[in-house]
Amino acid sequence: MDSEDFQLAEEYFAFAIELAKKVGPMIRDAFYSEKEILTKSCTTDLVTETDQNVEKTILEAIKNSYPKHDFIGEESVAGGLKCNLTDAPTWIVDPIDGTTNFVHRFPYVAVCIGFVWKKERLFGVVYNPILNEMFTAFKGKGANLNDKKLKVSKEQDLGKSMIMTECGSSRDPKHLDKIFKNMQSVISAPVHAIHSLGSAACNICMVAQGGAEAYYEFGIHCWDYCAAGIIVEEAGGVVIDTQGGELDLMRRRIIAANNMSVAKSLSNVIVEQMELPRD
Amino acid sequence: MDSEDFQLAEEYFAFAIELAKKVGPMIRDAFYSEKEILTKSCTTDLVTETDQNVEKTILEAIKNSYPKHDFIGEESVAGGLKCNLTDAPTWIVDPIDGTTNFVHRFPYVAVCIGFVWKKERLFGVVYNPILNEMFTAFKGKGANLNDKKLKVSKEQDLGKSMIMTECGSSRDPKHLDKIFKNMQSVISAPVHAIHSLGSAACNICMVAQGGAEAYYEFGIHCWDYCAAGIIVEEAGGVVIDTQGGELDLMRRRIIAANNMSVAKSLSNVIVEQMELPRD
Repeated sequence: MDSEDFQLAEEYFAFAIELAKKVGPMIRDAFYSEKEILTKSCTTDLVTETDQNVEKTILEAIKNSYPKHDFIGEESVAGGLKCNLTDAPTWIVDPIDGTTNFVHRFPYVAVCIGFVWKKERLFGVVYNPILNEMFTAFKGKGANLNDKKLKVSKEQDLGKSMIMTECGSSRDPKHLDKIFKNMQSVISAPVHAIHSLGSAACNICMVAQGGAEAYYEFGIHCWDYCAAGIIVEEAGGVVIDTQGGELDLMRRRIIAANNMSVAKSLSNVIVEQMELPRD
Repeated sequence: MDSEDFQLAEEYFAFAIELAKKVGPMIRDAFYSEKEILTKSCTTDLVTETDQNVEKTILEAIKNSYPKHDFIGEESVAGGLKCNLTDAPTWIVDPIDGTTNFVHRFPYVAVCIGFVWKKERLFGVVYNPILNEMFTAFKGKGANLNDKKLKVSKEQDLGKSMIMTECGSSRDPKHLDKIFKNMQSVISAPVHAIHSLGSAACNICMVAQGGAEAYYEFGIHCWDYCAAGIIVEEAGGVVIDTQGGELDLMRRRIIAANNMSVAKSLSNVIVEQMELPRD
């Protein structure tokens, strides 16, 4: 990335923030209305018309302004599009992270817009229009919640940490055995507590704002954590693979933590390292 | 309870709301400051000076205005006071529900003030000074969040429900085996999701506001759910024992749900009915 690329990326960043603001009211209005609920991979994998409309709005705006850019979006992939991360400028979008929350009017939902170029994660925008929380981060420039600079927790000890994770949407008994084996191992580390907000992006942003020390999950997708991952890093935290190595955006697993000490300790108590089909 | 009693209780209710407003800033100010953390029953059972100061402030105000009333408070009981529910007008108080959240600056903390007279639960006040959410309910008069009337979700089907629960503070392996056995059974019911906010009162108030269908937990205490229990009932919901019978305020277990259909279905998938030492 040369300085000209960076300048362009900063223009895209401003565009992404405006885009999140634009679709926010679509999500907020629908949140308080009656909704038709559809299912995808199983009865607990939900989608609504709003997810699809918000993604369409974002996709069209990007195609209009930046026709040569690539686009990976949750509902486009669900609709059959390939999830292929190249060196091209690529927008990675989840129209509503936390669709189940959205359906239940549980206030943790967010539109997530991440941007990757030459495989480098450059910026992230996570906007929760219900709580009116706009999380933004650009590589090397720090992270913000609305106008406030974000800073992760200083805790170094996993034993004094609060951990975020989720049960996920699969109800396959073997998969769930592993999910709960991990959860029991983590709580017994011990840690102070395990919490779940029902949205990967909101969980990661909770780490970014210092309300929890770490988040881990298996089975999520790049659009769930690309944008928020940049935010937690720019708030001073780290994102790594659940096994302790470098994060792989297509491997569907992550630890996001306030620092490497907590991240590695957490990695050590995750007893079931799960390999999911890649994005 | 005759009408004169009710009139008195309404006076106490107004007093409780003012009291919650008064201690709110004590919690809010300390939330954003550095804190000294003490432990109680184990390394994951936390308490701070603020818990103790808030309870002292509430206790003194009640003793001054209503010297003949009984008082059951979390920190007073931790300090050795007996937890004895008589027919006298009794204030049941948790100065900070969600102390671990408070320590971590995770925004779900609440002062809880419940009032029981002749064993009847009459009113509840749950105030989260971080999110500025004041939940109030008086028996027969409905429940409010700030100035908004509360209404539970209309969902009747456990399979389409969002459930709240917690891992709790015990790290005893046998206890945790049961906690996770229940959680896996509930998620496999199936339900849409399981979430944890780290505070019984906030979880129950989430049910009261329609953001989740039900909450269950074992091992909590009367001060964790007395006030919030009245709020969810007055929002149109129910509170029952985890085995499906009548709620026992001293039995340290609860299902709070949007309706009896979801509550009973949830009771049926709780496979480990745990008996804790009574309050």
